Amino acid sequence: MLSTDRYFDPDPKQKSAAMELYAGIKDLPIVSPHGHVDPALFASPERRFGSPVDLLIRPDHYVLRMLYSQGIPYEQLLAPEDARETWRLFAANFHLFNGTPSGIWLAHELETVFGVTQKLSQTSADLVYDQIEDALKGEAGSPRALFERFNIEILATTDAAYDPLEQHQALRTSGWKGRVVPTFRPDDVVKIEAPGWREAIRKLSAASKIDIGSYADYIRALEQRREFFKSMGATAIDCGVFSPATAELSTQTAEAIFQRARQGKATAEDAASFTAHMLMEMARMSAEDGLVMQIHPGAYRSHNPQVLERYGPERGFDIPVRTEFTHNLHPLLERFGNHPNFSLILFTLDESTYGRELAPLAGAYPAVKLGPPWWFNDSWNGMKRYFDQVMETAGIYNTAGFNDDTRAFASIPARHDVWRRASANWLAGMLVRGFIDREDAEKMAAEMAVGLARKAYHF
Amino acid sequence: MLSTDRYFDPDPKQKSAAMELYAGIKDLPIVSPHGHVDPALFASPERRFGSPVDLLIRPDHYVLRMLYSQGIPYEQLLAPEDARETWRLFAANFHLFNGTPSGIWLAHELETVFGVTQKLSQTSADLVYDQIEDALKGEAGSPRALFERFNIEILATTDAAYDPLEQHQALRTSGWKGRVVPTFRPDDVVKIEAPGWREAIRKLSAASKIDIGSYADYIRALEQRREFFKSMGATAIDCGVFSPATAELSTQTAEAIFQRARQGKATAEDAASFTAHMLMEMARMSAEDGLVMQIHPGAYRSHNPQVLERYGPERGFDIPVRTEFTHNLHPLLERFGNHPNFSLILFTLDESTYGRELAPLAGAYPAVKLGPPWWFNDSWNGMKRYFDQVMETAGIYNTAGFNDDTRAFASIPARHDVWRRASANWLAGMLVRGFIDREDAEKMAAEMAVGLARKAYHF
Amino acid sequence: MLSTDRYFDPDPKQKSAAMELYAGIKDLPIVSPHGHVDPALFASPERRFGSPVDLLIRPDHYVLRMLYSQGIPYEQLLAPEDARETWRLFAANFHLFNGTPSGIWLAHELETVFGVTQKLSQTSADLVYDQIEDALKGEAGSPRALFERFNIEILATTDAAYDPLEQHQALRTSGWKGRVVPTFRPDDVVKIEAPGWREAIRKLSAASKIDIGSYADYIRALEQRREFFKSMGATAIDCGVFSPATAELSTQTAEAIFQRARQGKATAEDAASFTAHMLMEMARMSAEDGLVMQIHPGAYRSHNPQVLERYGPERGFDIPVRTEFTHNLHPLLERFGNHPNFSLILFTLDESTYGRELAPLAGAYPAVKLGPPWWFNDSWNGMKRYFDQVMETAGIYNTAGFNDDTRAFASIPARHDVWRRASANWLAGMLVRGFIDREDAEKMAAEMAVGLARKAYHF
Repeated sequence: MLSTDRYFDPDPKQKSAAMELYAGIKDLPIVSPHGHVDPALFASPERRFGSPVDLLIRPDHYVLRMLYSQGIPYEQLLAPEDARETWRLFAANFHLFNGTPSGIWLAHELETVFGVTQKLSQTSADLVYDQIEDALKGEAGSPRALFERFNIEILATTDAAYDPLEQHQALRTSGWKGRVVPTFRPDDVVKIEAPGWREAIRKLSAASKIDIGSYADYIRALEQRREFFKSMGATAIDCGVFSPATAELSTQTAEAIFQRARQGKATAEDAASFTAHMLMEMARMSAEDGLVMQIHPGAYRSHNPQVLERYGPERGFDIPVRTEFTHNLHPLLERFGNHPNFSLILFTLDESTYGRELAPLAGAYPAVKLGPPWWFNDSWNGMKRYFDQVMETAGIYNTAGFNDDTRAFASIPARHDVWRRASANWLAGMLVRGFIDREDAEKMAAEMAVGLARKAYHF
Repeated sequence: MLSTDRYFDPDPKQKSAAMELYAGIKDLPIVSPHGHVDPALFASPERRFGSPVDLLIRPDHYVLRMLYSQGIPYEQLLAPEDARETWRLFAANFHLFNGTPSGIWLAHELETVFGVTQKLSQTSADLVYDQIEDALKGEAGSPRALFERFNIEILATTDAAYDPLEQHQALRTSGWKGRVVPTFRPDDVVKIEAPGWREAIRKLSAASKIDIGSYADYIRALEQRREFFKSMGATAIDCGVFSPATAELSTQTAEAIFQRARQGKATAEDAASFTAHMLMEMARMSAEDGLVMQIHPGAYRSHNPQVLERYGPERGFDIPVRTEFTHNLHPLLERFGNHPNFSLILFTLDESTYGRELAPLAGAYPAVKLGPPWWFNDSWNGMKRYFDQVMETAGIYNTAGFNDDTRAFASIPARHDVWRRASANWLAGMLVRGFIDREDAEKMAAEMAVGLARKAYHF
Repeated sequence: MLSTDRYFDPDPKQKSAAMELYAGIKDLPIVSPHGHVDPALFASPERRFGSPVDLLIRPDHYVLRMLYSQGIPYEQLLAPEDARETWRLFAANFHLFNGTPSGIWLAHELETVFGVTQKLSQTSADLVYDQIEDALKGEAGSPRALFERFNIEILATTDAAYDPLEQHQALRTSGWKGRVVPTFRPDDVVKIEAPGWREAIRKLSAASKIDIGSYADYIRALEQRREFFKSMGATAIDCGVFSPATAELSTQTAEAIFQRARQGKATAEDAASFTAHMLMEMARMSAEDGLVMQIHPGAYRSHNPQVLERYGPERGFDIPVRTEFTHNLHPLLERFGNHPNFSLILFTLDESTYGRELAPLAGAYPAVKLGPPWWFNDSWNGMKRYFDQVMETAGIYNTAGFNDDTRAFASIPARHDVWRRASANWLAGMLVRGFIDREDAEKMAAEMAVGLARKAYHF
């Protein structure tokens, strides 16, 4: 059973202050401005999640990679035919998640979403499986029902630049009131070095109805798609890049690289220049159309080629690398950092940049906000480090509140709960130490829970 | 109202130990061995601070950049004609500083220096303004009176190599007892890549009465100026460099670079070599004349060119970069690291170097001490990280106590108070955990408050 | 006197939980899978430690460098003729170790091994010296007696590839039951840039009885030595490298570099390539013979050439550098990261890699485990940072338990005690916050104390 005072520091004064602050924010709606939930889940009221394994294991690379790291073959985890066997394997190894965010999220989901109060283990595996399976079958277990029960005010998905947004369209025309908006993600059409780039450009041509033969066509197509996303409710774009290097190319150079890419002759250097240039272009477009720009840099994707080849990407082998922002973002900020219509939200997997680079940038440039602790750092201790390393320099008002950034829809309340508890605990710590007073602490708690995200993402 | 137990950890045992340790050090005099206070403040007893905005906002780039980061234009902050309007803007936005060191320092200053006990806000803005304005008018609000009231034992300023130190001279001859000493800062005359370098050399020629036509003249002039600073009470020099790279050039190479610089033809590579070489030269001179050498590396200065052009430097856009010490300092330490007359105090904006590079260097080389948490890290949590990451490896005796490093004179007691409370809290944490006993904790507290700074700076 | 609740967090709930968890593990045997104790200590029952200075000061570079950093000349510390004078100097400066791991280990050793309950100081110096000297003379103070009293289940030493392991042999044939096993460390024969490399190759030829004239001979000799080490009980190898770069050379290139090295003509680039290649080769051999592979990278060895020249290596001047794992290990993990017979334990001196690179790698690759906090980070706060930065991503089961990594034999119980207390304290913190339950906490405590080390090192 989850205790009501869970996670909070044990000191009685701090804990009681934390519980009071938490009580004031726990029932606020969920604002989810960045994530990877499939919009198709909500396109029709008939949609269901499938088996407990379809819901909780297969789409969750945090869970998969932990099991794989202990020698459990991906075959046994991804084999579609025997969900219950996979569940048993997972349950028998649930101790691997002790002390990890996945462990906490899962316990929270099981209890609050599915009413499971036993600890998951080899013994309880079947019972728990049945309980979840039952819950998922009924209408109360449908994606739309959970969306409403979770009190989600707005949920942003992440969608390729060429995505026709049919699911979003279906959802809108269905008359359902849930607010689900797309986010424009141009990665596929920017990564000229990727094997699928030319196919992505063909899709972009098709989606934009612009026959993309030149760099100028390409830019026009992107501008047009951004307009379309905006018309579908998008307020933001997202750039997933290896490096946050930014640099402006001349139109001629950009065109030359673009043509080499079309012929499959772009070099690695071309690719790096083009990505750096396209971050500048995305910033320029954002300064024009007002879409908030996000940058998620610093992951070495699919580090394990054997796993990539056999099981595809997103199997837990995206490994962070050292990331540099001060030099890399200089060209972009030189041009757009003071622009009144431009807003840039930065993320990092390299915590050494929190205090050294990101908080000073966010604490000075009007265009820059710092996104919440991301991915490996989206955890109780990751949040503590973020608060301690970022807030003294940037203040909370230069941060962007919380993102759950998940494709595991049922874990969304659990993730926001950890953030709200962590915020309340941090603010309580400052309150009992006399850094802030109660009035400030209460306002800050509400800002961190929903206000900052609403403002940063223009909701 | 400030509570007497503020900042300390809430655990009752640790808090009471911290309060006892703090009680033993809170009234010790202030030793301020590095900072940027204007010596002219003390040159005559008639000198006053000006308006509350002149004192608390305009010279404080921590405050300015936070307001600017939230979209408040610099025009409104720096416009000299309407101080009260600027103050109101500041007061209405004071929540931006919640949980930041500036917020804490300002609250402390307002209450202890100016007797303001209300919280600053839009509502209280005018009342507080009047109260400060009144306090600043009388003799009790004069710089000299505050210096005495603050119980400052010694205050070191930072002065260009060519500075005639007239204010220091006036202060000395005035018969006032306050001890204010200069620090020799050669940056302007070393940065051959800066537009103002040739002008700086002309000033150095004038100050030293040496017509500087060659590298040898230049070195002689620097040696002579150091001698002069020493005669004026200086015990230290300070080098603010982008990188702490050190490397010795041959005299011929140094001369050749120097001549290229005089002709405005020095390359970026020349500049980097020359800076690295001049760190070696400064160390050599320090080993000879005994002036303690400080290095403050790692800031990308004036990262925002639009702000630089319109509002000048020191507007909050100096952004830290990753810094490397182990390789960079090797040439210097190879030559001077064991020298009995050489003392080097290192600072960093890159906390990842605390435990990895700086504590191991300070914990081994007799010449090396580690300076206190600097700038963005001069904060409650910054101090905690410093204690936790540095002290186990270096021990406290290889550190240099505290620097306030400020140009905001009235904030000096507030800054030292945070350090003393943080030290007491940290030592109390070790005491209640049995890492040290009370006798050690009391000695260490006094060392950290004043003893280490006196020793490290040869006061 | 050591208090029984020492080090634990002061909050009463957390402390009592920590003490209960600690009570369950404090008497478990010591598993010491990596360290530098001299096996000769145990080869014969007559062996004694020598003077207190021989035992506690001279072999301990942590102690030596701290004294040297405060201006105490190495002459006075290493002079063999007057042990008592050296001891007095140490005692008079024992305050330098306040709050450091050395201070804690020494206090623990003095009290639990030698019955010294006074605080070491100038005053108590002689008395303490006499007490230790007495204890060391008798049979109860012999290495073997202490091994048994320390309840050491297994102790691994570190031995050069060409070491004939005579001491290990003597120990085995003596009939003594203490389990002491070697570890294969090929550094000397891999570092083609080191002055002693050719001599090391001669020794390798002699030990392997293979006349090493070619790269192929060299590889055969290494394989043969690994076999021999294995036959002597070794379960692991250890690679101490500057960089963890890995890259496979063609046999021809490896041969060419090897021949250049034999002629003393290898370049720095050759050396780097060869080291990177040999890490791949060691991994290949480990995948074949099953010896666990350890990598200890990132120390700039003998940073102080004056000290190196006069007093030799290991005098406290090995200074860490920034280290990169994600790119550097990619070639090795691409090939062996999924291999069922390969096991790699990674260490770092660069804590910024804990959460960014190492925990994600260990939390995904089945072959990778993360070693405990190493060297400068083997401390109370170092352990806290390790737990907080590693465990949420990797889980405890992808870590390798504890290593004491010491040559100071008498400090082994003290070091394991700090780890066990730190583990208990960390688990208690999670327990009282509701992250884990008591059953899990107890299991995890036992795993961290001994279970994980036994598994990771194939004991």
